Amino acid sequence: MPEIDDGSACDAGITLAFSVLGKRWNGMILGVLGSGSTSFVGVRRAVTGISDTVLSERLVDLVDAGLVTRTVAEGPPLSVSYELTEAGAEIVPTIGLLGDWARRHLRKEVSERSA
Amino acid sequence: MPEIDDGSACDAGITLAFSVLGKRWNGMILGVLGSGSTSFVGVRRAVTGISDTVLSERLVDLVDAGLVTRTVAEGPPLSVSYELTEAGAEIVPTIGLLGDWARRHLRKEVSERSA
Repeated sequence: MPEIDDGSACDAGITLAFSVLGKRWNGMILGVLGSGSTSFVGVRRAVTGISDTVLSERLVDLVDAGLVTRTVAEGPPLSVSYELTEAGAEIVPTIGLLGDWARRHLRKEVSERSA
Repeated sequence: MPEIDDGSACDAGITLAFSVLGKRWNGMILGVLGSGSTSFVGVRRAVTGISDTVLSERLVDLVDAGLVTRTVAEGPPLSVSYELTEAGAEIVPTIGLLGDWARRHLRKEVSERSA
């Protein structure tokens, strides 16, 4: 059960968590990076339906939040890779639990309707 | 670590989970209902910043997804209450873990910027 700070406010930690995870795609991007460092194209390929522009924005957000690092290897060829920080990696098992729960309880149709 | 269905796709369960939780407010609404059944106004009061229109839409989504039940008690006075289903209640401890993680790792400023 979440701790409620007082009788009428949503738990501050939960509010903070969903300021990141309640933005479409962020949870999926963290989940994908949970299986290892990858390139921009690698993330885009794994997250079906995301556009380049939105993925760029989300990666900037996640870097700013301290959850992802962006590493540029001066080439040639120049390559950019994204990787979870320790803080980012720490949420991956919990994201896995969300996935397990969704498999048990969410119907495919709901996902398609509200995605 | 999430299970990846193949080398290039985000885990289907995680995708499904964030089709619900990646919509702004849904995680917070589930977190609030995790502390007990409440009225529309009760939820709105706990979820700072949500509008009536958006809260109505989100509650319809969550009812459709099988995570929340809406109960109308014919009055007078007529009263409507919202409560987690078993499936909804089952995700509350995991939402609590997200909150604990956010308290440890997310800075307030990030929340305010991207909220």
